[in-house]
Amino acid sequence: MQNKNVHEQFENMDKLSEECGVFGIYDFDGGDVASTIYYGLFALQHRGQESCGIAVSDTKGPKGKVLSYKGMGLVNEVFTPENVDIDAMKGDIGVGHVRYSTAGSSTRENAQPLVINYVKGTLALAHNGNLINAIELRKELEYTGAIFQTTIDTEVIAYYIARERLNSKTVEEAVGRAMDKIKGAYSLIVMSPRKLIGARDPLGFKPLCIGKRENAYIITSETCALETIGAEYVRDILPGEIVTITPEGGIQSDTSHCLKKEEQARCVFEYIYFSRPDSHIDGVGVFQSRMQAGRFLAIDSPVEADVVVGVPESGNAAAQGYALEAGIPYGTAFVKNGYVGRTFIKPKQSNRESSVRIKLNAMKEVVNGKRVIMIDDSIVRGTTSDRIVGMLKEAGAKEVHVRISSPPFLWPCYFGTDVPAREQLIAYNRSVEEICQVIGADSLAYLKIERLKEIVNNLDICSGCFTGKYPLEPPKEDIRGEYQK
Amino acid sequence: MQNKNVHEQFENMDKLSEECGVFGIYDFDGGDVASTIYYGLFALQHRGQESCGIAVSDTKGPKGKVLSYKGMGLVNEVFTPENVDIDAMKGDIGVGHVRYSTAGSSTRENAQPLVINYVKGTLALAHNGNLINAIELRKELEYTGAIFQTTIDTEVIAYYIARERLNSKTVEEAVGRAMDKIKGAYSLIVMSPRKLIGARDPLGFKPLCIGKRENAYIITSETCALETIGAEYVRDILPGEIVTITPEGGIQSDTSHCLKKEEQARCVFEYIYFSRPDSHIDGVGVFQSRMQAGRFLAIDSPVEADVVVGVPESGNAAAQGYALEAGIPYGTAFVKNGYVGRTFIKPKQSNRESSVRIKLNAMKEVVNGKRVIMIDDSIVRGTTSDRIVGMLKEAGAKEVHVRISSPPFLWPCYFGTDVPAREQLIAYNRSVEEICQVIGADSLAYLKIERLKEIVNNLDICSGCFTGKYPLEPPKEDIRGEYQK
Amino acid sequence: MQNKNVHEQFENMDKLSEECGVFGIYDFDGGDVASTIYYGLFALQHRGQESCGIAVSDTKGPKGKVLSYKGMGLVNEVFTPENVDIDAMKGDIGVGHVRYSTAGSSTRENAQPLVINYVKGTLALAHNGNLINAIELRKELEYTGAIFQTTIDTEVIAYYIARERLNSKTVEEAVGRAMDKIKGAYSLIVMSPRKLIGARDPLGFKPLCIGKRENAYIITSETCALETIGAEYVRDILPGEIVTITPEGGIQSDTSHCLKKEEQARCVFEYIYFSRPDSHIDGVGVFQSRMQAGRFLAIDSPVEADVVVGVPESGNAAAQGYALEAGIPYGTAFVKNGYVGRTFIKPKQSNRESSVRIKLNAMKEVVNGKRVIMIDDSIVRGTTSDRIVGMLKEAGAKEVHVRISSPPFLWPCYFGTDVPAREQLIAYNRSVEEICQVIGADSLAYLKIERLKEIVNNLDICSGCFTGKYPLEPPKEDIRGEYQK
Amino acid sequence: MQNKNVHEQFENMDKLSEECGVFGIYDFDGGDVASTIYYGLFALQHRGQESCGIAVSDTKGPKGKVLSYKGMGLVNEVFTPENVDIDAMKGDIGVGHVRYSTAGSSTRENAQPLVINYVKGTLALAHNGNLINAIELRKELEYTGAIFQTTIDTEVIAYYIARERLNSKTVEEAVGRAMDKIKGAYSLIVMSPRKLIGARDPLGFKPLCIGKRENAYIITSETCALETIGAEYVRDILPGEIVTITPEGGIQSDTSHCLKKEEQARCVFEYIYFSRPDSHIDGVGVFQSRMQAGRFLAIDSPVEADVVVGVPESGNAAAQGYALEAGIPYGTAFVKNGYVGRTFIKPKQSNRESSVRIKLNAMKEVVNGKRVIMIDDSIVRGTTSDRIVGMLKEAGAKEVHVRISSPPFLWPCYFGTDVPAREQLIAYNRSVEEICQVIGADSLAYLKIERLKEIVNNLDICSGCFTGKYPLEPPKEDIRGEYQK
Repeated sequence: MQNKNVHEQFENMDKLSEECGVFGIYDFDGGDVASTIYYGLFALQHRGQESCGIAVSDTKGPKGKVLSYKGMGLVNEVFTPENVDIDAMKGDIGVGHVRYSTAGSSTRENAQPLVINYVKGTLALAHNGNLINAIELRKELEYTGAIFQTTIDTEVIAYYIARERLNSKTVEEAVGRAMDKIKGAYSLIVMSPRKLIGARDPLGFKPLCIGKRENAYIITSETCALETIGAEYVRDILPGEIVTITPEGGIQSDTSHCLKKEEQARCVFEYIYFSRPDSHIDGVGVFQSRMQAGRFLAIDSPVEADVVVGVPESGNAAAQGYALEAGIPYGTAFVKNGYVGRTFIKPKQSNRESSVRIKLNAMKEVVNGKRVIMIDDSIVRGTTSDRIVGMLKEAGAKEVHVRISSPPFLWPCYFGTDVPAREQLIAYNRSVEEICQVIGADSLAYLKIERLKEIVNNLDICSGCFTGKYPLEPPKEDIRGEYQK
Repeated sequence: MQNKNVHEQFENMDKLSEECGVFGIYDFDGGDVASTIYYGLFALQHRGQESCGIAVSDTKGPKGKVLSYKGMGLVNEVFTPENVDIDAMKGDIGVGHVRYSTAGSSTRENAQPLVINYVKGTLALAHNGNLINAIELRKELEYTGAIFQTTIDTEVIAYYIARERLNSKTVEEAVGRAMDKIKGAYSLIVMSPRKLIGARDPLGFKPLCIGKRENAYIITSETCALETIGAEYVRDILPGEIVTITPEGGIQSDTSHCLKKEEQARCVFEYIYFSRPDSHIDGVGVFQSRMQAGRFLAIDSPVEADVVVGVPESGNAAAQGYALEAGIPYGTAFVKNGYVGRTFIKPKQSNRESSVRIKLNAMKEVVNGKRVIMIDDSIVRGTTSDRIVGMLKEAGAKEVHVRISSPPFLWPCYFGTDVPAREQLIAYNRSVEEICQVIGADSLAYLKIERLKEIVNNLDICSGCFTGKYPLEPPKEDIRGEYQK
Repeated sequence: MQNKNVHEQFENMDKLSEECGVFGIYDFDGGDVASTIYYGLFALQHRGQESCGIAVSDTKGPKGKVLSYKGMGLVNEVFTPENVDIDAMKGDIGVGHVRYSTAGSSTRENAQPLVINYVKGTLALAHNGNLINAIELRKELEYTGAIFQTTIDTEVIAYYIARERLNSKTVEEAVGRAMDKIKGAYSLIVMSPRKLIGARDPLGFKPLCIGKRENAYIITSETCALETIGAEYVRDILPGEIVTITPEGGIQSDTSHCLKKEEQARCVFEYIYFSRPDSHIDGVGVFQSRMQAGRFLAIDSPVEADVVVGVPESGNAAAQGYALEAGIPYGTAFVKNGYVGRTFIKPKQSNRESSVRIKLNAMKEVVNGKRVIMIDDSIVRGTTSDRIVGMLKEAGAKEVHVRISSPPFLWPCYFGTDVPAREQLIAYNRSVEEICQVIGADSLAYLKIERLKEIVNNLDICSGCFTGKYPLEPPKEDIRGEYQK
Repeated sequence: MQNKNVHEQFENMDKLSEECGVFGIYDFDGGDVASTIYYGLFALQHRGQESCGIAVSDTKGPKGKVLSYKGMGLVNEVFTPENVDIDAMKGDIGVGHVRYSTAGSSTRENAQPLVINYVKGTLALAHNGNLINAIELRKELEYTGAIFQTTIDTEVIAYYIARERLNSKTVEEAVGRAMDKIKGAYSLIVMSPRKLIGARDPLGFKPLCIGKRENAYIITSETCALETIGAEYVRDILPGEIVTITPEGGIQSDTSHCLKKEEQARCVFEYIYFSRPDSHIDGVGVFQSRMQAGRFLAIDSPVEADVVVGVPESGNAAAQGYALEAGIPYGTAFVKNGYVGRTFIKPKQSNRESSVRIKLNAMKEVVNGKRVIMIDDSIVRGTTSDRIVGMLKEAGAKEVHVRISSPPFLWPCYFGTDVPAREQLIAYNRSVEEICQVIGADSLAYLKIERLKEIVNNLDICSGCFTGKYPLEPPKEDIRGEYQK
């Protein structure tokens, strides 16, 4: 029931949305970790911009006393001096979260980390991903007396950990038993009074890695968060692995839930768009995989042209790859307005101005009189592509050849990505030829599906949104958005 | 972890704090109830100023879809157009809450109504009171797999209703079974998808009454909320009664938890201070009981004087009673600054100004050269009484005789009132004579304990905070503030 | 262009509005004065609630360096830690202001104090009142090259002081010369780099007094502000007097603009409603003059009744006077909700609730079955009187006799009070009999015009709003609201 | 006296700051222009991020009625639905402004447009630049009775226009006469009740151009604002030209203040850094001039390397120029975090994290094992260059050769750019060799001063900040920051 602005807000740039980023830290030397989490969340902000939160605890203090603050908005909107005094959040262990969500459940109640009291004290959970059996699990829990205060899967996971804890020697054992129940995509960080635990689903949909800075250990979604805080990368958490961090044991690993390599199913869109280009996931650099996608486009869908340009920011890497492979100069055709911000009002009396124009402008010098190859990472609904192509033409481009560094979206995602309804996808019921006409390009080509594995060094991937073939049986009914209050 | 102002905030006026006010409504004609709840909460604002919330549902709509908004602050601070569009909160059934809390747990997470999903859909709960077996119940629940996200008793109650619902035919039956478990003070409103339920603990600590406006039924803490929204008073809910409101059944009553009259134990401080003077509780007018306390003071502790004045606002009624009984003129000695607001900053460079002076000022014309009887409803820590007495003396009062319309506070309350630690109570370890000296009065008298029953028409009351004799065995450890996250 | 809430806001309680309160201080001992001004403004808040501001300077520091902060809203809304750090406003001399304004010019630009740079450094001005020759003066100034950035008279005054300063030896001399130009009502405080100056218009429309606390001198609108900060009252500034405060000269007085006593024309409404009851103006207590008005009503317009009640807060003093004079018991019939605040939204879906009900409620015990005399200080439009009378009747009053402690409003005010257009005044074109019917009372009487002087100890007054006879020729066109940007 | 955050805020990226951007529009067809100004200001936001404002008027409405709103912050922070309803700002003529300022005078009072009333009605002024004779002019004005409420030069200009208007037939004539008085840098837009006027100082320091969209004419700082709103570029306003736009006369030009071409002195830093790369100033593309600077660096200061990278965003264009000229591949070495925002808090407990790391990260793949040429547009204090170089080395760069696409800063600017005190400039008292050591680079070279004219097609420029040779005699005392209140 958060009020929406009375003015219509401008549409976004027609991109998919990641659902979360997680960051946990345990400083054995006892330093206060809240500020480090705060900086880490800045580095993960691209993974979720709707809400964020930090929870910390003092492992030497009263058992399970957690200080937390959560709110709607960006990290620098939520963690202001007026709202919260980060310096007063004392603790040597903590967890943070940034979140995006589908429209309906974008409420404060659903912000994370989720902090709970249970039989053994307190847990704070931060979770990235989507369970596919959440409805069944909720029903099962409700039939044994559970109540739910949020609509996030994290609450389901918390319940199972709490319940399995009654039969487990340790909290990490309870996490493992909970993993026997839950199905789907999850990269999970659990802060217990004395332990920091990271767990990644057996298929490895979402990234999760370990870092170290002096005597502090970090678990987080992306390596870029490690670099931002000056930590060194230790390793990725394996798909299916549970990692427990304690001063006594350092990094302890439980790999009993790990599958065979070929059963893994990393979300390939993490490489194509979601993750920051300076991150590495499971040993593969995101920037490199985008460059490689561009190279494959140059090989598979060549066209004569004078300049290769990327749609900022995410199209730039592939454009550079294309340019190198094709031997055509790379150029910067667009200026992006960095001051626009996430949302701004659209006055009613405005009728000639477009949001795309405010965010992007094309530079005549670069494209005037030229044949241009324009690289973007994806087309979802196609609501802005025609305007961007049009901008190049107005700036004098003789031809605009569009190359997309991923295959066409055709299917929903059940594992944590917010794909619009099929009817809204431009590729649904349209040939590439038809899409090319819609966006007004002179030619259009997508990355071939068979190239997907190649751009990630032949890691095993999930490409369900392109192929409709999912590594796990999707739920029969579309569950996304079901548990909206 | 809400940030506190960087400047020290001014202390309050040395009064006890009520913990909550509740308001529920079911409009059988289908009108939108959110705005009525909003107005009702204004009338209950004196019962709690730290947070408030509204939850509504449409009984004809999708089962259990609840729209809610909660926040920290007063009703007019939380329900602003920027925060929430009340008109968009469509529903014919709803519940609202205002809350005060002890310092530690004054967090957004603890704001009410508590909205939960459980096996039968959705419940919204609003609760006033304090359970004395909350810790045992939490432990019991945790040992069967419960997790807690707040530190409020409402969550414990919600769990028991949810669990007992599995074995009950109706939700009101589940409420009754939950009442078998919980012990202490509670006036509870439960909104289920198709029913509005009110329940009052068997001892009747906290008030709860029923009203009606056209085809809408209201359950709320005080009758003043009924008058504010233009509803007529129907009756009080009996101690121990469960009332279920449905279009089919009207008001249905379950009195199986009711006790004998003499086992009831209404909080007498509701009459002395908490409730609004225009409210009636269980047939006794609050204003009248305060007038009566003043009359008893005049009878039991007479003194010669020229004028009787009350410390605004709560001392005025007793002052009028005293004046009438004693035949001494009633006067208005104090001007209260209505613009000060709940909190304001105290600059560090300020050292001569006092918060009492800003809130109150004495009028020379009324007291200059006179012997003054000053009536207040209570003295808690005694931190402001000396300043108020001093104000009268500076304004020229020859004598100041203080009369308090309640007995001295000596004991903690376990049933929902925030009494400071004993060491902070001015009456702890001090005789009346000594207190008189501390506050600089010429004489001091309190209401006699035996008068308490008389001022409420011989209703059965709890006077534990004055006597240390509680109607229910208090918990062994002081549980208040235990479950602070 | 401040945005209005999207929801209609509730109407106010049908009272006139004062336009300003002023507060100046010079601490010869060098203490920081910002916090004292802040507290003083709290005590003046009833004189203006739309904007407020503080400006301070260090007389030992760089000449004319002024630190100031102004904003829209109440003192505790504007001076929050987020907005401004009062402790960082270092200075031993300063001036503060609270402001009400007619709708159109309620903008941030018009907030005071007005801080200007001119040929001799810096001036900060705080002004209460209204000039009647402002338009002519503005035109005159503009024809000699002046530009205006606000629509407040203060800017006109500032210009004349600045210009006359060129021909004057001292700033106070320039203030005197400016007073030769300006006509109308003004109580003015001017802070120059080394002097604090207070000036009151020759007719003395608006109050202005001097106080002292240790080695600090205060000039302010009302004595209640002195008491709030713990200062002692020294004396009122005379109508027409200019007072200059410096460490060398103490209080220096220039009475060359003073008129004969019988030419003075204090605003009588300061006594009837505007000023706080604990203030004294020119030696007459506000509370006493209200009591006296009540007594006259009892003498001039007696009626048999069982209880006398006041409409809070401003009707209470006159009600006590009436009760004493008539020998009828005084009672408290209304409970006022102190949490409503200045503004709150009125949801569109609300149609049964009224703002009066939310702010006031009547107590049955006090009026049920009784003949009630209800005293109010004034009726302006009459938009709420009928509801308040109706409230008493619903609460069981057999008869309601309304007595108003001022004569009927019939004429505009040109001297700083915001009286609605004549057509909106209930007394315009209606006999007392007719008004009585409109508000549903059993009888109605106003204070007689000839009593006005008597209630203020025969001080000379302006009663233009009641009589249409003004002590200064009013401007030909209605100038109020003219200079709206 | 705006409160600074209690936490230290992170330092910026060591860049100079432009002081303003201006935007005016007159729609002869009567469309509401406020929303167009709003979009235009987004496109100018890089020119000033501290405050912004819009003023509009209806040329068919009451003469000189202006609606305006100004505030501290970015366009999307100030123009929110809570603050102001843009749709209610009706008008067919208007002017907008974005502002940066040196620390001291960053106050709401100084926000623009400045709206004044004067003898002929209302004027709204928006100004970019800095006068060098402002102090003399202020003194002159004060000695003839002027008062000042801001510390901005715009107020001085407004005074002269108002005064000269008394002796002028038209407002544009008065603008011309005011230009005879004022000296320095200014691009000025004046909105009178019926005319939109643009004026550019005779030396042409700051850009100002004209655009057209259907029947509406626009005057603005940069051509990118024209493209953003879909207007076409008409021409630049000449240095010294006054342009008056009316429905009757279209664009009327007064060139009587124009100088000979070689006397002009465009700020070359507009090309190097301030203006957006997609803008053109006086016929020269900003992107092209940066590319050209990069080419000259490659010619004048070649070095063997494997990759050329730019420091985002402003170094990218020069890096592309260098890469093309040198035949070395261009690469993207840095990821810039677009979510950091203008300001964010730095918790006290943070001691290891740096602001640079949060804003920028280097990509190993691109630089590991390589000799890198890193292009930046300027080094001011040098506070971040060492960290950026360090970042590349940590990412594995074998060598880092820094090339700066402007000469070293050595002198203050008196014409509207905020250059730090000389002692803070890294080039002050240091040789290029020494700077190279400070920043830890393997080699360092700056653009040669003689190249400056070449990169802007031999337009006449001001390069005072590099050479100390100014086109106008600078004031004897440093006046910047003088008129701080």
